[in-house]
Amino acid sequence: MSTIQDVARHAAVSASTVSNVLNGRTEKMRQETLARVEEAIVALKYRPSTLARQLKTGQTPLLGLLVPSIANPMYGYIAREVETFAQEKYGHRVLIGNTYRDKEKEASFFEDLLAHGVRRVIVISSLADESHLTQAVQRGMIVVSYDRRATPGEHSKVNHIAPDNFEAARIATRHLIAHGHTHLAFATVAGMTVSRSDKIDGFYAAASEAGLREHARVIEGGPSNEYGDSVIGEAGHDLALQIVKDACRPTGIVAVNDLMALGLMSGLRETGLNVPSDISVVGMDGLFLSAISNPGLTTVQLPVTEMARAMVERAMTGPCPPDVDADDLVFNTTLLVERESVAAPPAQTASTHARKRKTST
Amino acid sequence: MSTIQDVARHAAVSASTVSNVLNGRTEKMRQETLARVEEAIVALKYRPSTLARQLKTGQTPLLGLLVPSIANPMYGYIAREVETFAQEKYGHRVLIGNTYRDKEKEASFFEDLLAHGVRRVIVISSLADESHLTQAVQRGMIVVSYDRRATPGEHSKVNHIAPDNFEAARIATRHLIAHGHTHLAFATVAGMTVSRSDKIDGFYAAASEAGLREHARVIEGGPSNEYGDSVIGEAGHDLALQIVKDACRPTGIVAVNDLMALGLMSGLRETGLNVPSDISVVGMDGLFLSAISNPGLTTVQLPVTEMARAMVERAMTGPCPPDVDADDLVFNTTLLVERESVAAPPAQTASTHARKRKTST
Repeated sequence: MSTIQDVARHAAVSASTVSNVLNGRTEKMRQETLARVEEAIVALKYRPSTLARQLKTGQTPLLGLLVPSIANPMYGYIAREVETFAQEKYGHRVLIGNTYRDKEKEASFFEDLLAHGVRRVIVISSLADESHLTQAVQRGMIVVSYDRRATPGEHSKVNHIAPDNFEAARIATRHLIAHGHTHLAFATVAGMTVSRSDKIDGFYAAASEAGLREHARVIEGGPSNEYGDSVIGEAGHDLALQIVKDACRPTGIVAVNDLMALGLMSGLRETGLNVPSDISVVGMDGLFLSAISNPGLTTVQLPVTEMARAMVERAMTGPCPPDVDADDLVFNTTLLVERESVAAPPAQTASTHARKRKTST
Repeated sequence: MSTIQDVARHAAVSASTVSNVLNGRTEKMRQETLARVEEAIVALKYRPSTLARQLKTGQTPLLGLLVPSIANPMYGYIAREVETFAQEKYGHRVLIGNTYRDKEKEASFFEDLLAHGVRRVIVISSLADESHLTQAVQRGMIVVSYDRRATPGEHSKVNHIAPDNFEAARIATRHLIAHGHTHLAFATVAGMTVSRSDKIDGFYAAASEAGLREHARVIEGGPSNEYGDSVIGEAGHDLALQIVKDACRPTGIVAVNDLMALGLMSGLRETGLNVPSDISVVGMDGLFLSAISNPGLTTVQLPVTEMARAMVERAMTGPCPPDVDADDLVFNTTLLVERESVAAPPAQTASTHARKRKTST
């Protein structure tokens, strides 16, 4: 790679003259000198190092992106949108890290970002505690956090961007209720995050408004604090094996995300139960995989592209911390994509449930 | 963030003394001075900037990773393994780029890597022409290319790491033949890459050794030069709709990868055909998603973790170009994971085919 010295030698000028050309300080320069330097830059294919920019500004045109695991198709989808937009609109490249939802790995990623002069970071973490994010802001970073709202009433220095998880779960649940389901379950992985908790609230809200709160419950599977790629599918699969043993099993299940829904359907099939004629399943996310699953998965589609762009924009133009309050954007999630995984509950079970309800009133 | 000057002030020494400590030049230093500097480093949480390292060596501890699209679960899987290993073993962070198989995007990524002082890059491209990779080597980069062999007889400066694509396809095809299939198809996306071409050769090799070469054919779907995430699934889906219209349709299909196999199964189902009782399907890759698909997908499992680690190792310790010949590693792909997507061909079709074969001899 050519250096500024190579260009200077080639053009028979000083390095500072080359630097002047690169920085547009050419008013006092002789036309002939300017032309010679420009010619040398082209001939040597010289490209100014980002090092110069970094030395000057302490920053480098990189954007950090932290995900639990890039092997999770949802995070892969978000990462693709983030990288493409950051590159095309802001000329920033993306430095990626898998945290496996491990707090130490997250912290060490932040250290490395600072050492690299990276000042902007998008964090998909959803860990309940965000003190390490606040700390990063205090050290001069602009932090955008995905998938968790700001704590109401608190003035956070962290930008929050999230889908309306409450609403997404409520819509999914209402869809089951509209099909006649009275015994409902919300299937999730062990370990609570802000987004999971919001979804559970939305699930219960829909059940309550239909008078079905006592027939609605949350079922959890998989090891705790999972980082979530293949294990989410496996957790769904194992949950299904549990559910079928249940004497009064749910007929309609809302899954915490599409991956869990796919795992659930696979487990249910293994036990001989049919989706949707025996049990209906609704997902959340809108992965392209849910369109080619068998049966096609009915799911609440999140506006991934819009959210990814908003995150990049916040990271690039966000308030200069720590003086200004950060932004909190919650994205609409009212788009339910109907496919084949939801039907009316089986007649027999429906009547059993109806009897039971009567008894309990 | 503290600077070297802050540490010097805190320890009441000169910045060059701090620099000496950081670089292990402490032989002539008084114990007391050393202790004071070390204490200041701890107290101020000073962390040497990678800038210093970059200034000194022209390099920065980053590894570039180019993928067609990180939203493709296979590339997400590889990227997770690459990032984790590069970080844990070599303390390198990963700078990622989506190329959408676009040559200009690839070239611009290389420019940016050079500008950032990144000298090591893993490229998942499989574009037939690799002149831009050779060029990058000439400019001082260590390049590891995934999923394409080196051209036999050529001394390439690019390191190649690939699964044995020929063998993978041969094993998948033999598996169908062992189940009695005589009418075979290899389903792929439009646009030829080195890996796809190797797979097709393996497919034909298995057909030929069983005397079925004339009943074996390649079918292509989807738009040309696709970068491949959701579109591969869609291409598989659309191919299925084509296949069923075929009067003498194949009973056994080898798909170019798992994603295409999942799309194929979804399309076949839509037309009322059953996998495996009407048509058998085998994939290649071994995505975790193929374990939870319906039916479970029989597939050739690629050694992703081993290949990812080998790629990182090559990138980190590879020959200093352009003097030494690069490495070419081809990884074993003999692990067929049997699930539920393969059965004997339907009786009627089998006999029809048998008759036809008799006529043609």
